[in-house]
Amino acid sequence: MKQQKIEVCYSPALFPYYENHDAIVVVTDILRASSAIVTAFMNGVEQIIPVGTLEEAKAYKEKGYMVAAERDGIVRDFADFGNSPYNFTPERVDGNQIVYSTTNGTNAIQLASSGHQVLIGAYLNISALAKHIMKEGRDLLVLCAGWKNKFNLEDTLFAGALAEMVLADDRFYTICDATLGAMDLYDAAKADMLGYIEKVAQRHRLKKNRLDDVIGYCHEFDRTELIPVLKEKLLIPLINTK
Amino acid sequence: MKQQKIEVCYSPALFPYYENHDAIVVVTDILRASSAIVTAFMNGVEQIIPVGTLEEAKAYKEKGYMVAAERDGIVRDFADFGNSPYNFTPERVDGNQIVYSTTNGTNAIQLASSGHQVLIGAYLNISALAKHIMKEGRDLLVLCAGWKNKFNLEDTLFAGALAEMVLADDRFYTICDATLGAMDLYDAAKADMLGYIEKVAQRHRLKKNRLDDVIGYCHEFDRTELIPVLKEKLLIPLINTK
Repeated sequence: MKQQKIEVCYSPALFPYYENHDAIVVVTDILRASSAIVTAFMNGVEQIIPVGTLEEAKAYKEKGYMVAAERDGIVRDFADFGNSPYNFTPERVDGNQIVYSTTNGTNAIQLASSGHQVLIGAYLNISALAKHIMKEGRDLLVLCAGWKNKFNLEDTLFAGALAEMVLADDRFYTICDATLGAMDLYDAAKADMLGYIEKVAQRHRLKKNRLDDVIGYCHEFDRTELIPVLKEKLLIPLINTK
Repeated sequence: MKQQKIEVCYSPALFPYYENHDAIVVVTDILRASSAIVTAFMNGVEQIIPVGTLEEAKAYKEKGYMVAAERDGIVRDFADFGNSPYNFTPERVDGNQIVYSTTNGTNAIQLASSGHQVLIGAYLNISALAKHIMKEGRDLLVLCAGWKNKFNLEDTLFAGALAEMVLADDRFYTICDATLGAMDLYDAAKADMLGYIEKVAQRHRLKKNRLDDVIGYCHEFDRTELIPVLKEKLLIPLINTK
């Protein structure tokens, strides 16, 4: 019986219209925050503290924390890291706790916390995510971080890919136009994802600042089984009990 | 030289992030308000007064105005018309002034009034719209009325179709992901538009209330050259000076 619905929210500013307390909320910001967060856990980070404002990030830095903080793609001068997955090497992050503030990502994570469970999603962990969501058998809401509350294509394509995977399980259904649109865009893009991504606005922004070296990596599927989950305002790795 | 940008806003709730005082703003609500408004002018309506609330609509009715008012697709008991283009026959509307309030459409019109010019767009007048926008040579912002601030497919497909027409003029460009997405969805749908529209949420809503008879008509291209334009809180026909 189809009873678990899938919805996609294209912007944090639309979240109030999609909010679902029973849903697993997957927050995604493919270029680059959610890909970077998943990579940080792959490389041994123990906890990430997402904070909204640069002031909070700076206050943590002054208390001695390692801090990742960027705005508009550019690392802030007080911070240890920016927003590139390549920053979070095992040498730098293994066993550590990191404070993280980004243009679009951390605000989305805080909004999503009204859901049943908040997970961080990227292509890097997409199959593990789909498997977990199907195991839980709850509604799925994908929250795209977008760009300053505008729609973006790269998060939407990921949402379409994840929805398609989860809909393979007969208990799930969607009557959400945003989900249907995301799946159709993913279908149009998937044969040549990196060719498609050439045109998206965020790729132009990254290229302008010579930060576009990570685009291929951020579209690699299934590099890990790790899923970051929000627990009492901290991101930690979800332990998958199979 | 490419200097006029095209953007698409998928929801009235996202309008603050796309607002552009220099742009021609095309408001669309394909199923059914903008298709109905264009039809009303085709059939001789002189003016439409868009109002936001049912209370305002009712107050006009008590003063003797003809009133179109619906919520969730259903005509309100005090009103003369609902939201079906088929309601606005020449016998009923020719030479008249009508007060109009709908679930999503009139709110979008009021928001859009911060733009340089506000036009009402539907497939029924799409080529006339594109011609006017190219003649004016200003930025274009398409505002999709959506469904209670959620994204909808039918308005997005129209936005994609209009953007594609206007981009044929070399002076126009887009770096807006929502516009690129709308064009790709339109390209996926256009070979069998009515087949594609079968899946959209609004078609299910209309069908449930036996109001889906208008879907084919609302997707007919170029039935008129008339373009409704907002002038001092009234919609009147734009006179195209060729």
